[in-house]
Amino acid sequence: MVSTALERLQALQGSLRAVDNVAKNYRKKFRIAVIGSGNWGTAVAKIVAENAAEKKSLFEHEVRMWVRQEKVGDMNLTDIINLHHENVRYLPEVRLPDNLVADPEIRNVAEGADLLVFNLPHQFLGSVCDQMKGIDFSRSSAISCLKGLNVSAQGVELLSNVVEEKLGLHCGVLSGANIASEVAREKWCETTVAYPLPKWYKPGEIDEDLIKALFHRPYFHVQVSSDTAGVSIGGALKNVVAIGAGLVEGAGWGDNAKAAVMRRGILEMIKFGVTFFPGTLPETFTNESAGVADLITSCAGGRNVKVGRAFARTGKPLEEIEKELLNGQSAQGIITAREVHELLSEKNMLNEFPLLVAIYEVAHGKLHISQLPDRIAD
Amino acid sequence: MVSTALERLQALQGSLRAVDNVAKNYRKKFRIAVIGSGNWGTAVAKIVAENAAEKKSLFEHEVRMWVRQEKVGDMNLTDIINLHHENVRYLPEVRLPDNLVADPEIRNVAEGADLLVFNLPHQFLGSVCDQMKGIDFSRSSAISCLKGLNVSAQGVELLSNVVEEKLGLHCGVLSGANIASEVAREKWCETTVAYPLPKWYKPGEIDEDLIKALFHRPYFHVQVSSDTAGVSIGGALKNVVAIGAGLVEGAGWGDNAKAAVMRRGILEMIKFGVTFFPGTLPETFTNESAGVADLITSCAGGRNVKVGRAFARTGKPLEEIEKELLNGQSAQGIITAREVHELLSEKNMLNEFPLLVAIYEVAHGKLHISQLPDRIAD
Repeated sequence: MVSTALERLQALQGSLRAVDNVAKNYRKKFRIAVIGSGNWGTAVAKIVAENAAEKKSLFEHEVRMWVRQEKVGDMNLTDIINLHHENVRYLPEVRLPDNLVADPEIRNVAEGADLLVFNLPHQFLGSVCDQMKGIDFSRSSAISCLKGLNVSAQGVELLSNVVEEKLGLHCGVLSGANIASEVAREKWCETTVAYPLPKWYKPGEIDEDLIKALFHRPYFHVQVSSDTAGVSIGGALKNVVAIGAGLVEGAGWGDNAKAAVMRRGILEMIKFGVTFFPGTLPETFTNESAGVADLITSCAGGRNVKVGRAFARTGKPLEEIEKELLNGQSAQGIITAREVHELLSEKNMLNEFPLLVAIYEVAHGKLHISQLPDRIAD
Repeated sequence: MVSTALERLQALQGSLRAVDNVAKNYRKKFRIAVIGSGNWGTAVAKIVAENAAEKKSLFEHEVRMWVRQEKVGDMNLTDIINLHHENVRYLPEVRLPDNLVADPEIRNVAEGADLLVFNLPHQFLGSVCDQMKGIDFSRSSAISCLKGLNVSAQGVELLSNVVEEKLGLHCGVLSGANIASEVAREKWCETTVAYPLPKWYKPGEIDEDLIKALFHRPYFHVQVSSDTAGVSIGGALKNVVAIGAGLVEGAGWGDNAKAAVMRRGILEMIKFGVTFFPGTLPETFTNESAGVADLITSCAGGRNVKVGRAFARTGKPLEEIEKELLNGQSAQGIITAREVHELLSEKNMLNEFPLLVAIYEVAHGKLHISQLPDRIAD
């Protein structure tokens, strides 16, 4: 059953021939740009640059990555990346492809790109988009790899919509059970990409197959979805559920209770999706990497679980726990839980999302964890 | 927000009044028997005896539990349980209700019971049923808490069907993310009970509400389902997926890969259900405690994960690993994986369940784990 090197080579040649056949359908070779170069940003840049180098008939060879310039020692980070092919600051010890070029000038990176991969911290998205204003993106597309939502008392907005509105380009999303350090080390995983076709789509333009060809790697398996909202919501709300998983762990309730919180979490994510984005598909949460799998990975460990666990054990304020445990980083679930609570309160819907609300209340000392089961009981 | 003791008492009184109102609808107080007294058997017996003692208008006070007699020191296990209200052999340090009576005579336990709760190891089910032959169960019901299926090259049979066929009583199932030691210590969890009404049902007989009243506790939350097959299949196939999770862990692939295996596992469980039991509901696997939550708990740890992990690390034969790691116990997933493989092979369906087949093949040295991702790729 174990395949030989020859069989593997033949399979690779076959798949490259398939790529060439597909390429005949496109109007040009597409130029790819990556906006952001943190841990996850660089890991995804590595993926798309590998595919650009390999699928020569589909993509321009060079992939440019915008790097917010900083000094490492007395050198520019961009120079280190371009000389040594390693992002020593945010993804050390991972060799990057030679065709991935770091560039500190964002407009230089973005102008002329057919597809922009956005991958930076949520809080910088607006200001980074502002730096690209005026560039003609009328026939460009984007994929947002950001995990988050713009939630406020007024309503919910997808981050892909922020990109669309600010820049006038068509934006899909990528999300999944993708811990960056594992992806960067080419440990196998799956992801979900939602890329509904733009209004201006004509045959020959970027489509789902092209998007899959750009992100799919032997170690990074892509499933394509049409559900931009579902994929986005999964990546944001899982952080709140992960705090709940941490609370239950910290209370010493065991694996049964943790699984119950996660199960209820999936159901409330579905409800949140269909409530605020009609047309959201429940299957995105139950069947896709961006749903159940990302939730599982996030609840297995990570910052949000740690914060929840520590709160249940010590009762210290969340901000204090963040400072003590996270070394300057933040647990996104704390912010999302507060914003979601504010939204639901404003919309008079607190009773309809008992788990999300209870997690917020427990984590803020307004509800004792012993009351959580009754709160979410049918 | 923290409720006072008075509020809690009032809530309890309210729910007991509700029970009394419900009771008027039933033809009698029902007599409950438990068949089996291992770890999980005793934990469930504790639950139903607590409810029988509390909901006096619904259930006869005494709950009899069949215990296969054995000596502990120079005393009978049944005498210890009845004297000290503790199953010192299989569930030590957990106080059992006074109205739970251990009895070594199975016919004495079963005769006259309106509802029998089956909870013993899969391999003893047939012979235990044989000991009850001839008892009139024509108006009795059962709930099977066994996790498993009868799978062979010929086909698949639910264990609840075995009970029905051998004894002529109507049998539902209970399954969920329910590690016995946590349930026994009253750590909150959820479970799923499927109890479709029997053909001979008339108003006044046992129905879903009664079943929920029997199993639901403040620490053991019951969701009722109609999907006997789905609930049963979840409890059996999760053990195979848990071996897969262990293989991936042992190979050092990380949390992303483990979540991918679990996600694929849910999808193949659904497919297995609808293929062999048309009418099985996909939601049972994606939404219920007996589906996704039980899978999560099982993949968090437990025997099957341990065995898979050790195999990936050492390559030793599974039987050897079981002996070394499990102290005489068996990893049910090994048997189920083999039986499922045999069935799919016989039905010419190996290609339709790539994950279940790959787990079997990797665990038996017929496939290298590095090939698993390609095997299950879309």
